[in-house]
Amino acid sequence: MFSPLIENLIQALRCLPGVGPKSAQRMAMHLLERDREAAAQLAERLTLAIEKVGHCSKCRTMTEAETCALCDNPNRDASVLCVVETPADVLAIEQAGNFHGRYFVLLGHLSPIDGVGPGDLGIDLLMSRLDSEPVEELIIATNPTVEGEATAQFIAERARGKGVKVSRIAHGVPIGGELEYIDGGTLAHAFSSRQVI
Amino acid sequence: MFSPLIENLIQALRCLPGVGPKSAQRMAMHLLERDREAAAQLAERLTLAIEKVGHCSKCRTMTEAETCALCDNPNRDASVLCVVETPADVLAIEQAGNFHGRYFVLLGHLSPIDGVGPGDLGIDLLMSRLDSEPVEELIIATNPTVEGEATAQFIAERARGKGVKVSRIAHGVPIGGELEYIDGGTLAHAFSSRQVI
Ligand SMILES: [Zn+2]
Ligand SMILES: [Zn+2]
Repeated sequence: MFSPLIENLIQALRCLPGVGPKSAQRMAMHLLERDREAAAQLAERLTLAIEKVGHCSKCRTMTEAETCALCDNPNRDASVLCVVETPADVLAIEQAGNFHGRYFVLLGHLSPIDGVGPGDLGIDLLMSRLDSEPVEELIIATNPTVEGEATAQFIAERARGKGVKVSRIAHGVPIGGELEYIDGGTLAHAFSSRQVI
Repeated sequence: MFSPLIENLIQALRCLPGVGPKSAQRMAMHLLERDREAAAQLAERLTLAIEKVGHCSKCRTMTEAETCALCDNPNRDASVLCVVETPADVLAIEQAGNFHGRYFVLLGHLSPIDGVGPGDLGIDLLMSRLDSEPVEELIIATNPTVEGEATAQFIAERARGKGVKVSRIAHGVPIGGELEYIDGGTLAHAFSSRQVI
């Protein structure tokens, strides 16, 4: 019942997480009927972000700069480094608000079946940070999934060789869940009850 | 905590109906981390739709063609014409599924305070359709708001002069509500219990 260009737009909007067919229709109608200026700005900002946003050369989170604002912030505690799987996990931990150290983002987890090895996760870069920075504790906050646990064990073994205290966030996060969707309270609890491994 | 280009993208995503700050963050992360191809396609389709989609020359709904698929469909009953405020209302009525006539979309309602008069709503075009097409009944399905009612009364008076039966959908739709958000069952009921006015 929609013309092809509107139908195509509705389909494209469904790439957004949490947007089903009805929401996508409503969004397309809203943009085209009432707010073409905002729609044009969205298109422009999407294009610019896709083109320019890469990864921080220190922690690998997403940024268009050489290094990100968290790495550049001199008030962050350089003695604690937290390893996470994705930039969205950094966001979740920042929103929980009780961690004040620095981050390292793996951009994934070890997954031999998908051909993802230590090289893809920047683990050499992580080890070189343990050599060159005054890191005393490495907190591993990969997801509590099979792959996240295997990744945590792999990193823990490599890091112990550097004489760094290695810890894992507590299993307050439900097993099989995804870190980025956990509420701040649970995440804060998981951080405070972390165990040396 | 986000870099400027990511922050700008998050702000732009908030133009979508029903998208708050947390959803916008999640959407931006998802697009940039996992699906840049889909993000690029969304940007492209937004741009194309904004540029090409206009209004049907017969019913004023949104389409990039001269006339829309509903107007072009020979199986729709030309003896019944339904007047709505927006293209989203056409969608809602089509989804209710019990109306098989044709449409006319006002693209608004009479609103002297906003300077919206009969000329802005294409009422002359609507009247010319009553002259040139075999319309027997005009169903007015403007929203049950003060402006929607005033618009309905205005159109009813003009149309009665053409010897056309004029009806108003029943008030099964909650007063003050917006037609596009009503469930199909309520809308179907409102259509079947319409009253001659
Ligand atoms: Zn960084
Ligand atoms: Zn049409």
